Amino acid sequence: MNTSERPQAQLLTNPRSDRVREVAKLAGRSARQRQESFLAEGPQAVREALRLHEARRLAGGAGVVEDVYLTAETLARYPEFGAVVPPRMVTAEVLAAMSSTVTPQGALAVCRFIDSSLASVLERSPRLIAVLVEVRDPGNAGTILRAADSAGADAVVLTSGSVDVYNPKTVRSTVGSLFHLPVVVGVDTRDLLTALAGHSVTVLAADGYGDWNLDELQDASAARRLAPSSLSVNEQDARKPFLEASTAWFFGNEAQGLAPEVLEAAGHRVSVPIYGSAESLNVGTAATVCLYASARAQRG
Amino acid sequence: MNTSERPQAQLLTNPRSDRVREVAKLAGRSARQRQESFLAEGPQAVREALRLHEARRLAGGAGVVEDVYLTAETLARYPEFGAVVPPRMVTAEVLAAMSSTVTPQGALAVCRFIDSSLASVLERSPRLIAVLVEVRDPGNAGTILRAADSAGADAVVLTSGSVDVYNPKTVRSTVGSLFHLPVVVGVDTRDLLTALAGHSVTVLAADGYGDWNLDELQDASAARRLAPSSLSVNEQDARKPFLEASTAWFFGNEAQGLAPEVLEAAGHRVSVPIYGSAESLNVGTAATVCLYASARAQRG
Repeated sequence: MNTSERPQAQLLTNPRSDRVREVAKLAGRSARQRQESFLAEGPQAVREALRLHEARRLAGGAGVVEDVYLTAETLARYPEFGAVVPPRMVTAEVLAAMSSTVTPQGALAVCRFIDSSLASVLERSPRLIAVLVEVRDPGNAGTILRAADSAGADAVVLTSGSVDVYNPKTVRSTVGSLFHLPVVVGVDTRDLLTALAGHSVTVLAADGYGDWNLDELQDASAARRLAPSSLSVNEQDARKPFLEASTAWFFGNEAQGLAPEVLEAAGHRVSVPIYGSAESLNVGTAATVCLYASARAQRG
Repeated sequence: MNTSERPQAQLLTNPRSDRVREVAKLAGRSARQRQESFLAEGPQAVREALRLHEARRLAGGAGVVEDVYLTAETLARYPEFGAVVPPRMVTAEVLAAMSSTVTPQGALAVCRFIDSSLASVLERSPRLIAVLVEVRDPGNAGTILRAADSAGADAVVLTSGSVDVYNPKTVRSTVGSLFHLPVVVGVDTRDLLTALAGHSVTVLAADGYGDWNLDELQDASAARRLAPSSLSVNEQDARKPFLEASTAWFFGNEAQGLAPEVLEAAGHRVSVPIYGSAESLNVGTAATVCLYASARAQRG
């Protein structure tokens, strides 16, 4: 163990110290914007933050983690948490005072903003992007980000009217996925549509009143893969979007869905089938079904 | 408007009355068990509760809604809420005191337990059942119930170690779906497995370390439908479960998943593919992908 891996000598014990107050402020958006930093709380998030930190440093870039705060119990249980950035040891009381959650579970990291630029995402020829348009609930945003990670999406984009991705509740509900794939924030929806068109990315708008049913698109995709000779060509088929194409899925606000002008500008409106009597789908559920349908078609 | 449709004359204004206290107690499990009643909060839940009430009464059965509490604003906005059961008019303050949520949105119904027996579900030859085995988070249970409703499942079963389906947070997160499909509660997992086997229902256990990948099962199902001649028969294919078969999907606890003895007893373990770097799937996300895969195969 070299010097840089050694825990800081001093145990922080005062829950009312200036440092504790500064960290705790990061639960609020204005402090996060000012310090360009956010909280990763709990062992899972801290582990993923440290992994990304290490990967970026090995690639010659700037790190992600500014400070790691651990209780002695946590360091004993996860000694690897002390191996990347010299941790600051704290009492459980100090950690509770720093944290936005009632159960910080012994670990907290202060991280620098990690969002990517839209240009950097697009120049890597993404195949699958999830776009959150004015999604307001932190838990929903986190769930979609995690589902996008599971479906192997290349990036997640949050438009300017969406919830702050660095909101502690959003970070928590991504369960580490925030650190797994590029996230772009604060994008104007019209600029995004223009940029996607310029990179030949098909835009599919998830909408209860879509022109296409996701089932039709999945069937056509499966037929192309499994039984190409069975395909009949007609005008409707020619207009039908291919799930295999590079795709950006747009998901709208929980209550209002996507705005009419966004639906108009998006190339295709696609509805997720509702087989039962539910009136609508939770946006996280709809996003999961759509992203998995694309992932299957693209990797089939 | 006949007499039974007329609002009760008296406006309830005292948030500390015995009636208000009795209703408020239904936020707790023991009061719910004692009164065999639960809270449906907000216009969406109240609407669905009243619909089910009316349907059951028309079918000659017992009703569901014991009391509807509405503010004057709510009755003016949704006059149909007064057309099934004579509503009790309350002030916003009274409604807030009755409710478990900070925003009851002007409407609350006290409902009798609506769960069905396992036998009644099985005798109707169900094609798709979602089973929650020790799912503990009220929001997750509600999300799965809503996803099951969207996927057209015939029933949802909660085993005895699962969250109370009548927990107000669960009821809220079903967004009305609780009133759409039969729900069975408090079932012993082993008894359930025996009953399902007796009705030739295939049990698929959702498990990160499954013998089968859901993709394989979907591909085989699509091939049977679209290109039956392309199918090669080998021993592995013969053992592969059919998504088209009558199916009960088992979803496990958020932290521990399904217990080894349940995995052992279930016929097949199926994993949902993770294409990205997420370590695991949220149980709600996994359930959505599995139930939609079955729905597609069964209705293809």
